[in-house]
Amino acid sequence: MSHNSFGYLFRVTTWGESHGPALGCVVDGCPPGIRFTLADIQADLDRRRPGTSRFVTQRREPDEVKILSGVLPEEDGVTLVTTGTPISMLIENVDQRSKDYGAIAQQYRPGHADYAYETKYGIRDYRGGGRSSARETAARVAAGAIARRVVPGMVVRGALVSMGDKDVDRSRWDWNFVESAENPFFTPDPGSVPIFSDYLDDIRKSGSSVGAIIEIVVDGVPAGLGAPLYGKMDQDIASNLMSINAVKGVEIGNGFEAARIRGEENADQMRIGEDGKPHFLSNKAGGILGGITTGQQVVARFAVKPTSSILTPRQSVDRQGREVEVVTKGRHDPCVGIRAVPIGEAMVACALADHYLRHRGQTGRA
Amino acid sequence: MSHNSFGYLFRVTTWGESHGPALGCVVDGCPPGIRFTLADIQADLDRRRPGTSRFVTQRREPDEVKILSGVLPEEDGVTLVTTGTPISMLIENVDQRSKDYGAIAQQYRPGHADYAYETKYGIRDYRGGGRSSARETAARVAAGAIARRVVPGMVVRGALVSMGDKDVDRSRWDWNFVESAENPFFTPDPGSVPIFSDYLDDIRKSGSSVGAIIEIVVDGVPAGLGAPLYGKMDQDIASNLMSINAVKGVEIGNGFEAARIRGEENADQMRIGEDGKPHFLSNKAGGILGGITTGQQVVARFAVKPTSSILTPRQSVDRQGREVEVVTKGRHDPCVGIRAVPIGEAMVACALADHYLRHRGQTGRA
Amino acid sequence: MSHNSFGYLFRVTTWGESHGPALGCVVDGCPPGIRFTLADIQADLDRRRPGTSRFVTQRREPDEVKILSGVLPEEDGVTLVTTGTPISMLIENVDQRSKDYGAIAQQYRPGHADYAYETKYGIRDYRGGGRSSARETAARVAAGAIARRVVPGMVVRGALVSMGDKDVDRSRWDWNFVESAENPFFTPDPGSVPIFSDYLDDIRKSGSSVGAIIEIVVDGVPAGLGAPLYGKMDQDIASNLMSINAVKGVEIGNGFEAARIRGEENADQMRIGEDGKPHFLSNKAGGILGGITTGQQVVARFAVKPTSSILTPRQSVDRQGREVEVVTKGRHDPCVGIRAVPIGEAMVACALADHYLRHRGQTGRA
Amino acid sequence: MSHNSFGYLFRVTTWGESHGPALGCVVDGCPPGIRFTLADIQADLDRRRPGTSRFVTQRREPDEVKILSGVLPEEDGVTLVTTGTPISMLIENVDQRSKDYGAIAQQYRPGHADYAYETKYGIRDYRGGGRSSARETAARVAAGAIARRVVPGMVVRGALVSMGDKDVDRSRWDWNFVESAENPFFTPDPGSVPIFSDYLDDIRKSGSSVGAIIEIVVDGVPAGLGAPLYGKMDQDIASNLMSINAVKGVEIGNGFEAARIRGEENADQMRIGEDGKPHFLSNKAGGILGGITTGQQVVARFAVKPTSSILTPRQSVDRQGREVEVVTKGRHDPCVGIRAVPIGEAMVACALADHYLRHRGQTGRA
Repeated sequence: MSHNSFGYLFRVTTWGESHGPALGCVVDGCPPGIRFTLADIQADLDRRRPGTSRFVTQRREPDEVKILSGVLPEEDGVTLVTTGTPISMLIENVDQRSKDYGAIAQQYRPGHADYAYETKYGIRDYRGGGRSSARETAARVAAGAIARRVVPGMVVRGALVSMGDKDVDRSRWDWNFVESAENPFFTPDPGSVPIFSDYLDDIRKSGSSVGAIIEIVVDGVPAGLGAPLYGKMDQDIASNLMSINAVKGVEIGNGFEAARIRGEENADQMRIGEDGKPHFLSNKAGGILGGITTGQQVVARFAVKPTSSILTPRQSVDRQGREVEVVTKGRHDPCVGIRAVPIGEAMVACALADHYLRHRGQTGRA
Repeated sequence: MSHNSFGYLFRVTTWGESHGPALGCVVDGCPPGIRFTLADIQADLDRRRPGTSRFVTQRREPDEVKILSGVLPEEDGVTLVTTGTPISMLIENVDQRSKDYGAIAQQYRPGHADYAYETKYGIRDYRGGGRSSARETAARVAAGAIARRVVPGMVVRGALVSMGDKDVDRSRWDWNFVESAENPFFTPDPGSVPIFSDYLDDIRKSGSSVGAIIEIVVDGVPAGLGAPLYGKMDQDIASNLMSINAVKGVEIGNGFEAARIRGEENADQMRIGEDGKPHFLSNKAGGILGGITTGQQVVARFAVKPTSSILTPRQSVDRQGREVEVVTKGRHDPCVGIRAVPIGEAMVACALADHYLRHRGQTGRA
Repeated sequence: MSHNSFGYLFRVTTWGESHGPALGCVVDGCPPGIRFTLADIQADLDRRRPGTSRFVTQRREPDEVKILSGVLPEEDGVTLVTTGTPISMLIENVDQRSKDYGAIAQQYRPGHADYAYETKYGIRDYRGGGRSSARETAARVAAGAIARRVVPGMVVRGALVSMGDKDVDRSRWDWNFVESAENPFFTPDPGSVPIFSDYLDDIRKSGSSVGAIIEIVVDGVPAGLGAPLYGKMDQDIASNLMSINAVKGVEIGNGFEAARIRGEENADQMRIGEDGKPHFLSNKAGGILGGITTGQQVVARFAVKPTSSILTPRQSVDRQGREVEVVTKGRHDPCVGIRAVPIGEAMVACALADHYLRHRGQTGRA
Repeated sequence: MSHNSFGYLFRVTTWGESHGPALGCVVDGCPPGIRFTLADIQADLDRRRPGTSRFVTQRREPDEVKILSGVLPEEDGVTLVTTGTPISMLIENVDQRSKDYGAIAQQYRPGHADYAYETKYGIRDYRGGGRSSARETAARVAAGAIARRVVPGMVVRGALVSMGDKDVDRSRWDWNFVESAENPFFTPDPGSVPIFSDYLDDIRKSGSSVGAIIEIVVDGVPAGLGAPLYGKMDQDIASNLMSINAVKGVEIGNGFEAARIRGEENADQMRIGEDGKPHFLSNKAGGILGGITTGQQVVARFAVKPTSSILTPRQSVDRQGREVEVVTKGRHDPCVGIRAVPIGEAMVACALADHYLRHRGQTGRA
């Protein structure tokens, strides 16, 4: 993966910092003839938008996406159709508060990339997190909104399955509830809402933060996407998810659990279904065997660390080599993992769209 | 990542099946002037070689590497020096037993890629696992042996930290023990040897298999390698590790644990050390912040699933759409994770060598 | 080269059609710490801008570039310094005349890509040439303006050396004249101005068009850039130049002339100069031997075909399979090759900047 | 294009020097189910083999290709079918004469890459040209032999159209004659054989060399391959041809001639043919408009410089900074352009195969 691009045939290049004039992405290689509306893209963007509950940062930005190229309007004036040329999407940064970054400009915040950036580049855009800002993920979500439409019949959904040391109860899993208005957590378990609410209120009030685990589940993935090695479908999903800020772990199917069990427990057995076709009796593999999709649900999970922007004073050093105490003020999410749900969906959708085109290219099948 | 290549400036392309005449790789972009001997490469290859204990498959192959290009011999007749042109390495398959693959050729083994391959390509090399054979990893190890020499002062080591539901005791961690002759498991904990031995004897005798977790630790990594997003050092390590057969999960630093704890626990604090330079007080981040190395130890872990080649009969189907029972006979490792240790080291070494060159290219620093 | 990107470490992705809201590019991989002003970029853009003489199309657009990311302002409020993150540049399309494209929408213009586009994509943005519009080259020039600053001491210059069947007199070559105000042709030969003027007036008045040959000359290129094969410096220059619209031929050094002469005439001999260093006695090779720069001037030439947008009626067919006659009305350059000079410079600058970083990455030298 | 690879979906990586144990290539991304025999590949290799007439170097090597992976034998024992995994091909260097390279090891031959290599890498494999040896092209031809089979119905042919200042008479063009036994030049003009023979005998006897121009013509190319910009079909053909050693110029269709003529002469007009489909009345464009194939013959030409290995003493310098005279002894072709014919065919075939897969990937059409 090069620099700020990902994907091979469905290729996304993103750019932008949180406090410049705008951020965006270029989607190159999209098939011609894909139809969508600006509202489709916006709907996905609105899902990751901060400011929608007390549990996410109160920075209020409309995150309005503009499409600058690569589409033609249809006669209805609303539908856009891709032409096969690069699709450039732009989101303006309207809430760039002019504030004093004095301390942050000089100090290395523990758990942030400040020190690493400056060591690498010798220069650092300290305004609002610079390139690592959570705002950058808007570009991913916009690209993902198109990727979802590339594979016919594919449905990509995500849910938060753990927050800190609290897990959802999988026996109560309800996809409809994930997107419901009274669910500020993308949790699939209605019973978890009061638990997560109390837990996160506590954390928020104490100026702390907490991590989360997100699960992405994809239905309607054709069998045959991926490659035996190196272009493994699980690998590219892992790479895409790990490219998200603050992600420190990724697993496919039963993931780390696979290391704990025996071969006879782990291998998904097959039978011929009533439709006369092969069916799997379980899905430990997460829909991917030997790097190639099997037609089952594709399942991936990723771990998001707690943001290091907390009110508790922490020991650090500054650019002048002095020891300092750092307190991060300002607007921050107590659990950045919540908003990672639509971002994870987008990244998985992009990986699948890319391999759908690659598979079609190499084999002529779709 | 394209097809069967990985890396951007230090680029490795591998090829070969387990039952063709040979397998190998091409290392392209290696700096000129790197010195090593064939014995150096061979030493790494011998570490992953089967047949060295009763716990790994008895297929006996010398795995002798030949270097076909990209090096010049020095006057001592032993040292090779890279010229900057592609290094082609080849390992012959000498133990290609001519046997009857009849059943395997027609049946889809549960947990194997048979069904996925055939759906994708319409054709399948069923001999010995084809492209997915564990033998392919010899090429990775050979490439990694060179990668280790690209970053001056870098030391890449790996250890098995869990086998099935047994974990090593980290308080007894001893790197010297990992490579000792009486250690058939790459475990860093001498006390774990009898436990793992009994456990694995049981599994082996019952014709079963078990998974494992491997940890890779890298010392001597310069700060500044990686990129804020998309070319994140953690991402490329994850991608490289996930490209290994049977790997289903990857984590960096404290990994999934990060999702369970609070910001103040997770952020590594900094002080000025006695040398007048910034030091970290902990290493939850695994040596990588914001996608960029910090100069601390780089730490990654990956989960290897149990091989699906087991003696217990399993339900499956065949190419003709009939339901069958599959039993995998032949030579197989009860815990393929053991041999994954040097492979994981090689893949992490390649990722770091690649980013070392990329960093030098973009910034002019080394 | 993938889709709409070029370069490997200094990587440019362009997007945009002539009649959408804007066009632009993302420059990824630029070293940090490069300093320039918006005026620097604008100066290059103004050189390729139409509307500056009666010999180029009268479409009047300011071509004002905006930089949206990847730079920090310095204290003087004018100087920008790159941060090492992606630089997004945008140029708005302000002169999008709302006109009737009726005939063009249905007809395939001879010599244009209309038929090829529609066959490929099944859809075509016929407005103003769509993706193939000459306006797209503004993005290349903006990227090139940064590329020029990546290689210290490098000076990239271009000149028109032939227009139709008229050649400049090389004995009168004057680089200062190329950029002078009374030179509407980028010709290096003052004596050619009246000849080209009369010739092109004739062509313009008759509603015709003519091709041109452009020469790019680069001083200050370090020796060692490129690779023996596949990443040959001449190859990547050729690829970059051939990626420009309407270019149908490229040559390096003496180019096609090399096929006509003998080995003893073609090989550049070497002597030790007064500075004690190797010097070449001629430069037939165009500064590149075996794909690698030698430290001499790099010289490349490319052929630009005459635009097919002419007033003479031409035979063609339409989307309905009917035979039609096509006349292209509107604003068009009689010799599009004139404006290709700064574009060619930009593309060569990008190729050299890319290889400068690649060379530094692989070898640690600059 | 990265290092020693080319192509995007049909990707070829080559390795090897002329005096190492072997050279070869890896073809990655080839579709599964392509059928061919070893004899098919060998036939192409034999066409570029030296030692077949007095006009090419007398180095006699069988150039026997071995296929090490990526294919399965069919029941006839002769036919190989691709499996979709990487195809590794290897050609042993059997004629590595152990000779004294003393002078060449220390001197920079004029017109060779010796000086450039050493400046770049600080080390140089001087044996037989190292990486730049003409022998490397065997790997290209082997890859091209497979590429030819990827696009159904495609026929790629090449011919030498100029040798030094002698041109063939195009009115006598005969494709059958190109491959005939009494034609040592790949010339399409039977009348040119005595002229070229006398001319080249002269050059050979005087220890000199001469350049050549090669034309590649492709029939059966589907319309729609390529992209408007950056992934232009003409660009990737130019890049592939320019990657061949000693090539200094490339043109598509009428090429540099296009710069000399007017728009009405250059644009290929269209009519509806008797088959009811659009037909072009000429082919100035060389089968490519706006970077995309039109379904016409694809036509490309490239210029090969005369080899610098000549008997005439030439002025140069050595590694110690002394002025020397260089005379190249040994086996050399008086016109290396002759053998460039099958190499050019191979490189164009690879470019077309790659874009065939890319087009299918993006659009779902073939």
